[in-house]
Amino acid sequence: MENLTLLIEKENERLLAPIRENMDQFFLSIMGMCILFMQCGFAFLEAGAVRSKNATNILIKNVMDVFIAGVCYWLFGYAFAFGDGNQFIGYKHFSSSLLDDSQYAFVFFQYTFAATAATIVSGAVAERCEFIAYFIYSIFITGFIYPVVTHWAWHSEGWLTQGETYLFEGENNTMVATTIAYQDFAGSGVVHVVGGVSALVGAVLLGPRIGRFHKETSTVGTIRGHSVPIAALGGFILFFGFLAFNGGSQGSISGEGDGAAVSIAVYNTIISGSFAAFTILFLNKIQIFGNSSWSLLLTINGALAGMVAVCAGCNVFYPWCACIVGVIAAISYSFWGWLVRKLRIDDPIEAVAVHFGGGTWGVIAVAFFDKNDGIVFTWDKQSAYSLAWQCCGVGAIIAWTGALSVLMFSVMKAFNILRVSEDIELKGLDIPKHQEPAYPIEAYGHGHIERILQILSEGPKHIKQGMVNMVYESEIKDNGPYESPEVKAASEQRNGSVNNLVAYGKQHEADTRL
Amino acid sequence: MENLTLLIEKENERLLAPIRENMDQFFLSIMGMCILFMQCGFAFLEAGAVRSKNATNILIKNVMDVFIAGVCYWLFGYAFAFGDGNQFIGYKHFSSSLLDDSQYAFVFFQYTFAATAATIVSGAVAERCEFIAYFIYSIFITGFIYPVVTHWAWHSEGWLTQGETYLFEGENNTMVATTIAYQDFAGSGVVHVVGGVSALVGAVLLGPRIGRFHKETSTVGTIRGHSVPIAALGGFILFFGFLAFNGGSQGSISGEGDGAAVSIAVYNTIISGSFAAFTILFLNKIQIFGNSSWSLLLTINGALAGMVAVCAGCNVFYPWCACIVGVIAAISYSFWGWLVRKLRIDDPIEAVAVHFGGGTWGVIAVAFFDKNDGIVFTWDKQSAYSLAWQCCGVGAIIAWTGALSVLMFSVMKAFNILRVSEDIELKGLDIPKHQEPAYPIEAYGHGHIERILQILSEGPKHIKQGMVNMVYESEIKDNGPYESPEVKAASEQRNGSVNNLVAYGKQHEADTRL
Amino acid sequence: MENLTLLIEKENERLLAPIRENMDQFFLSIMGMCILFMQCGFAFLEAGAVRSKNATNILIKNVMDVFIAGVCYWLFGYAFAFGDGNQFIGYKHFSSSLLDDSQYAFVFFQYTFAATAATIVSGAVAERCEFIAYFIYSIFITGFIYPVVTHWAWHSEGWLTQGETYLFEGENNTMVATTIAYQDFAGSGVVHVVGGVSALVGAVLLGPRIGRFHKETSTVGTIRGHSVPIAALGGFILFFGFLAFNGGSQGSISGEGDGAAVSIAVYNTIISGSFAAFTILFLNKIQIFGNSSWSLLLTINGALAGMVAVCAGCNVFYPWCACIVGVIAAISYSFWGWLVRKLRIDDPIEAVAVHFGGGTWGVIAVAFFDKNDGIVFTWDKQSAYSLAWQCCGVGAIIAWTGALSVLMFSVMKAFNILRVSEDIELKGLDIPKHQEPAYPIEAYGHGHIERILQILSEGPKHIKQGMVNMVYESEIKDNGPYESPEVKAASEQRNGSVNNLVAYGKQHEADTRL
Repeated sequence: MENLTLLIEKENERLLAPIRENMDQFFLSIMGMCILFMQCGFAFLEAGAVRSKNATNILIKNVMDVFIAGVCYWLFGYAFAFGDGNQFIGYKHFSSSLLDDSQYAFVFFQYTFAATAATIVSGAVAERCEFIAYFIYSIFITGFIYPVVTHWAWHSEGWLTQGETYLFEGENNTMVATTIAYQDFAGSGVVHVVGGVSALVGAVLLGPRIGRFHKETSTVGTIRGHSVPIAALGGFILFFGFLAFNGGSQGSISGEGDGAAVSIAVYNTIISGSFAAFTILFLNKIQIFGNSSWSLLLTINGALAGMVAVCAGCNVFYPWCACIVGVIAAISYSFWGWLVRKLRIDDPIEAVAVHFGGGTWGVIAVAFFDKNDGIVFTWDKQSAYSLAWQCCGVGAIIAWTGALSVLMFSVMKAFNILRVSEDIELKGLDIPKHQEPAYPIEAYGHGHIERILQILSEGPKHIKQGMVNMVYESEIKDNGPYESPEVKAASEQRNGSVNNLVAYGKQHEADTRL
Repeated sequence: MENLTLLIEKENERLLAPIRENMDQFFLSIMGMCILFMQCGFAFLEAGAVRSKNATNILIKNVMDVFIAGVCYWLFGYAFAFGDGNQFIGYKHFSSSLLDDSQYAFVFFQYTFAATAATIVSGAVAERCEFIAYFIYSIFITGFIYPVVTHWAWHSEGWLTQGETYLFEGENNTMVATTIAYQDFAGSGVVHVVGGVSALVGAVLLGPRIGRFHKETSTVGTIRGHSVPIAALGGFILFFGFLAFNGGSQGSISGEGDGAAVSIAVYNTIISGSFAAFTILFLNKIQIFGNSSWSLLLTINGALAGMVAVCAGCNVFYPWCACIVGVIAAISYSFWGWLVRKLRIDDPIEAVAVHFGGGTWGVIAVAFFDKNDGIVFTWDKQSAYSLAWQCCGVGAIIAWTGALSVLMFSVMKAFNILRVSEDIELKGLDIPKHQEPAYPIEAYGHGHIERILQILSEGPKHIKQGMVNMVYESEIKDNGPYESPEVKAASEQRNGSVNNLVAYGKQHEADTRL
Repeated sequence: MENLTLLIEKENERLLAPIRENMDQFFLSIMGMCILFMQCGFAFLEAGAVRSKNATNILIKNVMDVFIAGVCYWLFGYAFAFGDGNQFIGYKHFSSSLLDDSQYAFVFFQYTFAATAATIVSGAVAERCEFIAYFIYSIFITGFIYPVVTHWAWHSEGWLTQGETYLFEGENNTMVATTIAYQDFAGSGVVHVVGGVSALVGAVLLGPRIGRFHKETSTVGTIRGHSVPIAALGGFILFFGFLAFNGGSQGSISGEGDGAAVSIAVYNTIISGSFAAFTILFLNKIQIFGNSSWSLLLTINGALAGMVAVCAGCNVFYPWCACIVGVIAAISYSFWGWLVRKLRIDDPIEAVAVHFGGGTWGVIAVAFFDKNDGIVFTWDKQSAYSLAWQCCGVGAIIAWTGALSVLMFSVMKAFNILRVSEDIELKGLDIPKHQEPAYPIEAYGHGHIERILQILSEGPKHIKQGMVNMVYESEIKDNGPYESPEVKAASEQRNGSVNNLVAYGKQHEADTRL
């Protein structure tokens, strides 16, 4: 009977194995797809935050991130990250050689993470970075800097994965050998600190945009992005993507407890993001780090910081811990944002504050809130060592990424290919570099320019409510014309306008005569 | 042998149990993610439908819906909805206490529904609702009003779920005891009627926007939204999300027939939405409820109404029934839209017509078209009782939501925190409340403003085809300049313009001299 | 023992069957949803590429594609495609009659493909096609042209699926009977060549837009689309959707090796798209088919062409083959784009180059790079026959689609319902046809028009940095005003402007006096 049960179990496992494999690959594929869609989120968050004259430039960078990572991660990134090798780096499976068919789902999934790490930088160096410099750093990050860090922390060989075995006091005064290692479930450190540090270095070495900081008045100028809706679209897509980013990090769905781990990770992401959003909304409203308004863009960034911070431990947090992580993440984001401005570093979309600020806190939070051995649950030598390993891990990541980024950006600066000329920066990059203005004026028909020209050419008596009569004919018939506040104001101003202009002209003539 | 088969089956089930659980959690997580993305859809549908001066305001409301629901549904909403309690309300699992890890997928999934219910309201109260009032109603709906309704209709304890057992005549004159209960698969009533009723009450108590209805002429003014593409984006995302909303409502994918139920629900959603879209498109074109144009925005709303209506029975409809449900949903939407306007209620995005109009019809449609015992298939006492229960259910939902909404919005009105001041309404909410204009004029570079100033400053002889010579240089070289109709018109008007202006100035001088 | 194992296996299979079925339906549903979301991608890619005066028109076409296909594919499309019938066409399951519940997932999945085929056309005929003509061709393509092709190539009965059995020389001089058939995994030919050919015919028969080609100068005019960000959004969504399009084409996830096939298909899509994007970016930069700029829109189109081309064989390519396929797809796209322009055919979004250019190459590429018997691996009679079948298949598709499209568009042209009047084309279709301008000027508040009127009405001394003082008050308090390059330029030009205008006016007067 025993034997029989065993036989059945064995048979079963044999039959279930392909089903399990399929489930896992399905899971990794669909989650990877959603994570890749985050590129669209980053693109629009950033595009909304730059001026219209640089919108095409930031969009092409985000589009190319997908494809640069596609090429580089395939050619060598994956080999460095997940190929067998040593504790520091892998060197197998270059250009996916010797890979079994069943491994491509994993390769694809990891590729989407690599693309994310690189894309963080583009926001911080926006509106002034040379396109060729962007190419170089993007290749370097997706192909080398980031893969090495993943090898450390996510490959079984990596020194951060292996950690160290220590003897701790167990029950009855016995000594128990326990391995303590760096924990980073979805990459608060591995992805976001890498991206954040590189973004910081890039922003520092590029220097601020023209007009961002005033030398004489020593004030910080606000350079507004050109479209809040575009930025909000990016934010929404990132919220969606982050659920896949954190949930998908479980890496499989067929093992016992996988489903629960995925759903807890997803749920904690929402909880942390929600509390972070609230925190930043009210911090700003009550004028701590803020200007007393209900800011949408800050709220989005705050929520993202909360989601970044919860990455590292979203599988081992209770929801109430995720809530604390979120609140502190928002504060950390505000603090780093303030510090970056204080240090006269120009980071147009606050990538450093979100990803570095959120990420570092997230790595450390694991040591405190891990439900198994977090410091708030059991404060002992073991949890202290865990904290040390988390700090060590994030320190190593910062040092590695920082050093290589400094090298990379400095060399480019030395060769003078890092920053566009002042002339191009003032003009904006879209036309000189891409010949594609984001909103070509001549493509706007019945709308802004024609209407204005019409207003200029016709007397005030021709001003119509709504718009040109002909085109809205049926509407007028249906509903009666509506004189909106805008139209009314426009109409009144316009009447005044010509008078003023003529008066001004006469005055001007009079002035020049003197 | 019998025994052996049984043993194998038992063993098998034991081994399959974790696989099933994982599949279900995977299913709920990914479907929930897609449903949450509907928030982005609502945000953009609404943002496109308001004027630019209120775009940031409507976007932050939709962003915060995600996070308000995140907090409230976690703290108490889920407990009221799916905690054990009585027939009316649950009271267990506050802040997800005592929840097993395996239940988080379900909590997350239900949370995404709660967020949807609240977000419906924001469209109806757009462009005039105080931000703080929004906070209060959003907390109240996601945390209490909606959860209680779900407890009634979707928790096994709820009075609408339990229904009532009646004796019906069976075959051979025997009496058969059958339980009749309220049926609402994906929430035509539970989600959309709740949202729609609350939206209606909010819109009534807020009153119309300035300029929407003319007292003297008693006409309805059209206040156009600022961007059709933004609204269309929202529509597309909602179409996508609705498939998950209805398909996901099966709640599991591992049981026999689950997959079929999911795919029928998905397919019926498309069928109903398609026929509703066609109906509204042609109703409008042939001027029943319409203005004889092919309207995109109406088509989107009509399709959504069809998808809302099919929610309640998408798992038990034949496709041809879904098609009838869609057609009637579109008519219902048109009727409610007309009625709301007639009653001088200002609902900027027709949330009431879509969600209330579609939802109520959807609940009732189940009684008619359920393939098991719908009235069109078997008209007998049992199906009549089913209809009565559907009406009773939707009536109870309307009464509950209506009463609490009236209370909630009235109290806010009494405290004068419901509506912004006239001054702010005219200015738009974005700058006074959020200090974030959606499209900050100074962020637009080579484009509108500069070009116009250039036209003003240079004589007509300097007008160039396309744009400034320098920037399009290579294009001109490549393709030859193209004098587009717009540019030509602009150029001609401009030539006239200065003449006119000068002439007008002279005339004006002459006039004032008299 | 043998028997026992067999029994266990049989029992197992019985128990696993519903699980497998559920997995497959789940897979088809979620993939289908993502594919349907591609409609949003096409909508925005196209909307960004037209002028603002036609944006609503192109959006409603893409919205209606979803619903036209919903109706037509349900009523008869599916029956023609996957109903039993003969080698040429199916005729069963009209309006999903006699369909088992378990088949709806497949119907839904195939429907999303049909919608894609139709939507390709709308881009090529943009800005001049009558709405009613659009209706007719869309019904015809989704309901007949495309379904018949799928019957040929994807239904087990179809003549392209069945292929032909040949005798080839095997080992030891024996003859082996092998069946060679047309291979098209995800539809490079079935979907994209159908769409591309129909788009080509439509564009030819409609004729170019006014202003696109100059008769006298014989130059090609560039008619820019109105919004790069909108086009980029479409591109991103299509990249996302293509992964589902190609991965989902496996059609099931429960069989052994399904997961691997899906993930290889997904990964090859990224690889091919990436290399295609790089190729086109550099081809354009070094001025082969290009203008020496880093073009975003070309890069997006190139990547899409790469993804289109890899459809046919993404399950049987090694990644390095996908990389070659991508490079050649980009060249093919450039060539077709050049040829189409050369032939004075006006295809506003280059749908022909992307889908026809990418698709035909993709079909042929299978014969070369199939890892099982591709020409580059084993050049023999069998691989030559495969090539012949691929060419034959794509030829038949071109002939069928071309002939029917010519018929369809010619008849519409004869009845004069194909193209809008010149008057409406110049005005743009949005207002005359839809009464919904994409960006109604009166909906833009504190923004463009008011600001310009203010500049006109006030003297230069009143020019403020940033914007109106009142509204940005707190900002000024916080950060100090920032005189951006734009504002500075505007301010300087404005000062000059009035002087110039006055001067011009005086000069003008003087001129006219002479």
